[in-house]
Amino acid sequence: MSPKSGTPKKNLMLFSGRSHVELAEEVAKHLNVTITPQTLHSFANGEIYVRFEESVRGTDAFVLQSFSPPINEWIMEQLIMVDALKRGSAKRITAIVPFYPYSRQDKKHKGREPISARLVADLFKTAGADRILTVDLHTAQIQGFFDGPVDHLHGQNVLAQYILEHYGDQNIAVVSPDSGRVRLAEKWAQQLGDRPIAFIHKTRDPDKPNQAVANRVVGDVKGRLCVLIDDMIDTGGTITKAADALKEAGAGEVVIASTHGILSDPATERLAKAPVKEVVVTNTLPIPEEKRFPNLTVLSIAPLLARAIQEVFEDGSVTSLFDGSA
Amino acid sequence: MSPKSGTPKKNLMLFSGRSHVELAEEVAKHLNVTITPQTLHSFANGEIYVRFEESVRGTDAFVLQSFSPPINEWIMEQLIMVDALKRGSAKRITAIVPFYPYSRQDKKHKGREPISARLVADLFKTAGADRILTVDLHTAQIQGFFDGPVDHLHGQNVLAQYILEHYGDQNIAVVSPDSGRVRLAEKWAQQLGDRPIAFIHKTRDPDKPNQAVANRVVGDVKGRLCVLIDDMIDTGGTITKAADALKEAGAGEVVIASTHGILSDPATERLAKAPVKEVVVTNTLPIPEEKRFPNLTVLSIAPLLARAIQEVFEDGSVTSLFDGSA
Amino acid sequence: MSPKSGTPKKNLMLFSGRSHVELAEEVAKHLNVTITPQTLHSFANGEIYVRFEESVRGTDAFVLQSFSPPINEWIMEQLIMVDALKRGSAKRITAIVPFYPYSRQDKKHKGREPISARLVADLFKTAGADRILTVDLHTAQIQGFFDGPVDHLHGQNVLAQYILEHYGDQNIAVVSPDSGRVRLAEKWAQQLGDRPIAFIHKTRDPDKPNQAVANRVVGDVKGRLCVLIDDMIDTGGTITKAADALKEAGAGEVVIASTHGILSDPATERLAKAPVKEVVVTNTLPIPEEKRFPNLTVLSIAPLLARAIQEVFEDGSVTSLFDGSA
Amino acid sequence: MSPKSGTPKKNLMLFSGRSHVELAEEVAKHLNVTITPQTLHSFANGEIYVRFEESVRGTDAFVLQSFSPPINEWIMEQLIMVDALKRGSAKRITAIVPFYPYSRQDKKHKGREPISARLVADLFKTAGADRILTVDLHTAQIQGFFDGPVDHLHGQNVLAQYILEHYGDQNIAVVSPDSGRVRLAEKWAQQLGDRPIAFIHKTRDPDKPNQAVANRVVGDVKGRLCVLIDDMIDTGGTITKAADALKEAGAGEVVIASTHGILSDPATERLAKAPVKEVVVTNTLPIPEEKRFPNLTVLSIAPLLARAIQEVFEDGSVTSLFDGSA
Amino acid sequence: MSPKSGTPKKNLMLFSGRSHVELAEEVAKHLNVTITPQTLHSFANGEIYVRFEESVRGTDAFVLQSFSPPINEWIMEQLIMVDALKRGSAKRITAIVPFYPYSRQDKKHKGREPISARLVADLFKTAGADRILTVDLHTAQIQGFFDGPVDHLHGQNVLAQYILEHYGDQNIAVVSPDSGRVRLAEKWAQQLGDRPIAFIHKTRDPDKPNQAVANRVVGDVKGRLCVLIDDMIDTGGTITKAADALKEAGAGEVVIASTHGILSDPATERLAKAPVKEVVVTNTLPIPEEKRFPNLTVLSIAPLLARAIQEVFEDGSVTSLFDGSA
Amino acid sequence: MSPKSGTPKKNLMLFSGRSHVELAEEVAKHLNVTITPQTLHSFANGEIYVRFEESVRGTDAFVLQSFSPPINEWIMEQLIMVDALKRGSAKRITAIVPFYPYSRQDKKHKGREPISARLVADLFKTAGADRILTVDLHTAQIQGFFDGPVDHLHGQNVLAQYILEHYGDQNIAVVSPDSGRVRLAEKWAQQLGDRPIAFIHKTRDPDKPNQAVANRVVGDVKGRLCVLIDDMIDTGGTITKAADALKEAGAGEVVIASTHGILSDPATERLAKAPVKEVVVTNTLPIPEEKRFPNLTVLSIAPLLARAIQEVFEDGSVTSLFDGSA
Repeated sequence: MSPKSGTPKKNLMLFSGRSHVELAEEVAKHLNVTITPQTLHSFANGEIYVRFEESVRGTDAFVLQSFSPPINEWIMEQLIMVDALKRGSAKRITAIVPFYPYSRQDKKHKGREPISARLVADLFKTAGADRILTVDLHTAQIQGFFDGPVDHLHGQNVLAQYILEHYGDQNIAVVSPDSGRVRLAEKWAQQLGDRPIAFIHKTRDPDKPNQAVANRVVGDVKGRLCVLIDDMIDTGGTITKAADALKEAGAGEVVIASTHGILSDPATERLAKAPVKEVVVTNTLPIPEEKRFPNLTVLSIAPLLARAIQEVFEDGSVTSLFDGSA
Repeated sequence: MSPKSGTPKKNLMLFSGRSHVELAEEVAKHLNVTITPQTLHSFANGEIYVRFEESVRGTDAFVLQSFSPPINEWIMEQLIMVDALKRGSAKRITAIVPFYPYSRQDKKHKGREPISARLVADLFKTAGADRILTVDLHTAQIQGFFDGPVDHLHGQNVLAQYILEHYGDQNIAVVSPDSGRVRLAEKWAQQLGDRPIAFIHKTRDPDKPNQAVANRVVGDVKGRLCVLIDDMIDTGGTITKAADALKEAGAGEVVIASTHGILSDPATERLAKAPVKEVVVTNTLPIPEEKRFPNLTVLSIAPLLARAIQEVFEDGSVTSLFDGSA
Repeated sequence: MSPKSGTPKKNLMLFSGRSHVELAEEVAKHLNVTITPQTLHSFANGEIYVRFEESVRGTDAFVLQSFSPPINEWIMEQLIMVDALKRGSAKRITAIVPFYPYSRQDKKHKGREPISARLVADLFKTAGADRILTVDLHTAQIQGFFDGPVDHLHGQNVLAQYILEHYGDQNIAVVSPDSGRVRLAEKWAQQLGDRPIAFIHKTRDPDKPNQAVANRVVGDVKGRLCVLIDDMIDTGGTITKAADALKEAGAGEVVIASTHGILSDPATERLAKAPVKEVVVTNTLPIPEEKRFPNLTVLSIAPLLARAIQEVFEDGSVTSLFDGSA
Repeated sequence: MSPKSGTPKKNLMLFSGRSHVELAEEVAKHLNVTITPQTLHSFANGEIYVRFEESVRGTDAFVLQSFSPPINEWIMEQLIMVDALKRGSAKRITAIVPFYPYSRQDKKHKGREPISARLVADLFKTAGADRILTVDLHTAQIQGFFDGPVDHLHGQNVLAQYILEHYGDQNIAVVSPDSGRVRLAEKWAQQLGDRPIAFIHKTRDPDKPNQAVANRVVGDVKGRLCVLIDDMIDTGGTITKAADALKEAGAGEVVIASTHGILSDPATERLAKAPVKEVVVTNTLPIPEEKRFPNLTVLSIAPLLARAIQEVFEDGSVTSLFDGSA
Repeated sequence: MSPKSGTPKKNLMLFSGRSHVELAEEVAKHLNVTITPQTLHSFANGEIYVRFEESVRGTDAFVLQSFSPPINEWIMEQLIMVDALKRGSAKRITAIVPFYPYSRQDKKHKGREPISARLVADLFKTAGADRILTVDLHTAQIQGFFDGPVDHLHGQNVLAQYILEHYGDQNIAVVSPDSGRVRLAEKWAQQLGDRPIAFIHKTRDPDKPNQAVANRVVGDVKGRLCVLIDDMIDTGGTITKAADALKEAGAGEVVIASTHGILSDPATERLAKAPVKEVVVTNTLPIPEEKRFPNLTVLSIAPLLARAIQEVFEDGSVTSLFDGSA
Repeated sequence: MSPKSGTPKKNLMLFSGRSHVELAEEVAKHLNVTITPQTLHSFANGEIYVRFEESVRGTDAFVLQSFSPPINEWIMEQLIMVDALKRGSAKRITAIVPFYPYSRQDKKHKGREPISARLVADLFKTAGADRILTVDLHTAQIQGFFDGPVDHLHGQNVLAQYILEHYGDQNIAVVSPDSGRVRLAEKWAQQLGDRPIAFIHKTRDPDKPNQAVANRVVGDVKGRLCVLIDDMIDTGGTITKAADALKEAGAGEVVIASTHGILSDPATERLAKAPVKEVVVTNTLPIPEEKRFPNLTVLSIAPLLARAIQEVFEDGSVTSLFDGSA
């Protein structure tokens, strides 16, 4: 008699917000689980309601949400789901955010601005998330915004493997579309086998006063197949101008590779028209049919997410998925 | 020499989100201040950006946001504004939320639900709000969700005064549209001069099996002018059915009084058609032209908000505005 | 060699404060455990001392305390027990509070009051309680006061089943003793099979000036067996006056049902004299012999507590005990 | 127009719990303020209710409570008062605790004990106290339990001055009643002018097996007036046995000096009978008439408390009151 | 009588750790205050002791520490000073860290690493710092690591003005020593009047297998005066190799400009030998005589720090010091 | 399908800072594990870098650091290791600190001092330590500084057993070197079999004005073997003067026993010269060859640490290792 003993069990449950159910289902399939059934809808005035239809007590919960517009809606939805899990006695809650929202507001560019990326980290913590699992942060420092473990997956690997398979035999240069991503270009250059790099320098042209800004290519791109890289493509302005500048500078074909395909208007229009052979992104964000265009290739991030979740659940190693670098 | 001394100053600054600028401007006018100039917009993918155009260092900041749809958008906007104020060294930050969002999710109605009203309180705290100023909470317990001072104003007073002026000489009964607001009806009955009260009892009719739900009036309303009260009117379903039931039960004219006019579709249509003489609400939420209808009266909450802000700023007494009851 | 591995065990230990040992022992019996032996006493100046006589390292600890007078004594005792468990490396600590103290101070009724029910939640958190398990909160919003999971059990079910068995064949009306519990009456009415409801409206009688307050019955009770319900009976003033008012209004027999029998003086005297057939309560609070009276029935809450503890320990579902509603 | 400016004011308000109103009134008189009017009482079931009758917005609040039995009652009362002040927008809250409760449970004497003195510090913090002002802590380390400023006043000075005035010309030895207070005795010895010290060593007498414990005087006390010191006198057992031992060891007269006169039963009886010329304590705790005895002298701590409050309010120096040592 | 009123004062006190007293004294002179006298030393076993010799109650405290080796010593010293200020009732505590320690460990470069820059921010918060004032963070995201306001000053302006004065008439190119600082180079290029930029690309030379790493200049530097910029110079390896690479690539003279002159061994030796006309740094870190070399120029950061402190103290605008960008 | 289940495993990993690798290795051997491989070094400017070479996900981590000089260096190192474990998803982190740093700054001896021992506890908490395991704290109250479980081991037992074996048959007196350790001496006296105790009273000698301080032995030591005890020996000044005083007072041989052998200069020189037969310490701190002297005996604390770690890992009882007193 006296105390009562037992052996603990652990079980993994997968939850999905409404923003990118397709991705969640793909992940579920790879994990060989089903998404936990739930009631999840918005009331007439926009307030979100959720209720899980199975007990979540003691579970290792993984809640996936992707941050396409309406982005603030989806943030609140994930926070509310996490709150319900916390109050429903889930044992551990991992917020899966394949694309981290507000990641570009990761510092004060000027005085009296917010640091919204830090705010978002704190909101997740407050709601009850114990951990975050994310892909290709805009800046790696955002990991440090969260007061707890962050598993930071490299979606870039998925893209780089594709580039190597399809263009690896060509005379490649890796190009950063602006001065802030040159380090990223350097990493890509290594992954693609020590290729040269270049970047686009945005400057006022001293020769033409009164004229706004010129895009100067810094580095040698003449005749090379240019892999123009970035972590995200939003409206596509910067990257298509970069493609133009490359062409003007005598580059060969241009291929764009970017983890997060936000593709806000008029990105699709711009990219479809740009002097670009192929645009490769992953599905960290949903890309609806109307945003697609002929030379767009969408690779799936789901296998990587599923493997990472599996490692987290089994106390394996996520780092080992990336040769020690995550 | 040695230390450097001075006398501190204090100054009040008013900030407004984009949800209900009209109300903010009315408050500003009553306070004899202007809304602090700012850059505030949404990027293409929906992320919100804010920057204040004047120094906020050391200020006593009041940030007003009203929670009409898109409600989650406006929540994030206010949180981001508060974060920017915190990082910009504001001395004290008061979030003014005339209508508290998610106030109906103030408890778990069933297992595995969130308590979103508590979550919202924690989000405000996390972003950096020191205090909350709000009007007619759905349940007064929500005050206890915030870890800090909450000034809870009684908008009901504004409504009651109007009712007394226009209908005070009639044979009034105060009616709650359901069993959960009877206490509120009792308070109204006192304010209107010890009137009788009634409520609508939602029940399955035992005489008619297979039939869903009947609305039974409990209390005596025959021939009386019924003041049908509630804290908010959302889609208007409950309250218009209550009006119908009152009429069936032989009531005289029906007047609806409610602090928060959410008026989600199809509220306007329902209310316009209902057997109701007048619907009185306040402008805690914006009521655009297309939601208005002939017998809708909108009273301004701005004078009350302005007086409360003034008392908070001057360390006066908000309680004194309500005869000790706030 | 290298790291050292093992399989974790889990074990449940039950702890009891001094306020209601009888209930704890009953729960222990249902769980088939014994209460953990401890040294627990008050020093001459009133300071409380506790020490557990068995190791609590890694345990799933359940600490039961019931809040009868001296209520503040028992609060401090439970906090001190929780602190000792935390510092003794218990793995998880659940405070079992069958009757939540200060639950009526769940909001500011007037300005410059405390919200003691929130304070109590924070005190438990601070001492180290991970979870709370409670029965029939005065208002369900109190769940939201605790920053963590709260298992809220419905003691009302135990009472309703008893009423159905003993009075189910009669012509019942469910009556709330004041305007604030009408929603509760409605829930009871459903559980008892869609019965009509009524409530007592406390009002100044406009016909008799200078006279304080009259209790008016709102709703039809004539000739019916009235089940007068409330969550708690403290001094019994409100509820016995309600019984009187029902009788005056022509009601048949009156049966009182309430989860928490506080029975502060002069409740016993009042209830014994009141025109009431039976008073049914549970033993969430100890009811000593001298407070009992002939038509008092005390049902045990212990089986419900034991089943809930078992579900919590085994990561089962507490919600399932209540058809999804907890 | 634009922002609104002003000069802040500050004001001091004094609040008193019910445990030792006499002391609070004495402090108020020294400060030339009145105790803030309030409604403060216990309900029938023991729950405490408080409401302040004047606005506390923006005030510098000092809340005095003394911890005599029922000690847990008074702790909860002070916590509830602090909560009401926090929610009523007091600017700064100082808990004045002339005798710190649970100060003897400042460590785990054995495994599986609480550290209640730390718990108490955390409870004050949680309720909303910004600062603590206290007198002669049982161990000075307790200052470190509170996460914020603690003003630690030396009541011992008040006692020492009295001893010097009345016995300074005699051949004094300072005596600690046990091995744990020898350092304190040393400080006293310095204050009284470099007097010799002694202490009582509690030991099993090796010569008389089977016999429990003997009190051996260590140090030279023969013929000297012994000032037997301690921070508190609870039931008086240790200190009266020490007096006996001193007498047996040939001491001259014995005078007892202790800051906190708890005087739990049977302290008064023991002290009245003990071979002691005079017992000197302060009024940090109330000493009702029935606990007094002929050779008891009670000095007032109120002037010291008032001076410290004044310094705290004016951002002066509390340290300067004690020659740098507080 | 009743409450006691007054007008608050505020006063600024400056405190200095032992790492860079010279800078603190220079700041004090600009502010027209003296450094607060204190006792500050290390005990034999390395534990640090501090005590302030004047009352710090209610003060606006600014604590300056510079993080040269022994860097961990100085971190602990500043934390201990902040703790003493907190417990001594300082009103507001600003940690001035001209060079933010561990700023290069601002993310996990690989799995199972710390994020020490975030840890440092949390340590300051824990000790009691309300704000941080710092100069030229390694990455601006570090601002987001601190949960409170950070004033981030641009030391770069001081350097750029010097470069313009001495080299502004020449044919300048701005050069980043590696791929991670190209954005910084772009900002410099703007400040110096829209100059071209270049960077050094660290790569394995594909033509020479088995050979480790080559430094390739990307961008046009031929014949230009190269301003080689970085936020800090530690051992000087990267920057002197960059200078070599520039010379090999046909650059004209090379001038190095960097805010933080860490100058760890063998930086002085390397820089003295490098093909560099001038090395310009500020005194955010102490640069002792033995680390100096003929063509080193050290500009003072003290005027900028003093102006910022003054703005913070007076609730002015730090942003205004930098045309809106801080 | 649906959720995915499993049985959790647990595993123990031991980590060691650089301060006392020898002790860590000894502990590892007793536990039959190896120290987790890691990269751990200081950069040129003193910043510390750590990376674990094996996955720490889900592990029960024990991190040992000993606090000899450079003590602040080692504190930061342990904090950084804990941060890396937290971010690497360790399940539970226990900081093993055989000697607690800054334990003598456990209170404010004077105003405006820090309480560094509390600060250190908070720093460990902030970095991510869940628990602390330590040996012979300077004052037991320090346990209460940490907001979580502290396992406080009694190293004194190891010493006392040695003394009994080597000197137990002699006529022992236990002596405290000052008035603050008399209680400790009393505990020793019990452990050694109810021996008499004495202490050294530091006083100004009233007979010799102008002369600083005299050490008076209080208690009977004549002809006895004096076991002079303390928790730590730092520079050895107090304890060697105590030995001198004992000899002057006619003591027999003097043996010194102390858990922590800090042995800062000139401790070794002083102790080697002192009239002392043997000095017995443990290896909670490293004692390099150059600090050793002929009559120094160093006992190993490793077996005790290993047993405690084992009990913590297995949810056994640490208290049981000390007959209930830890």
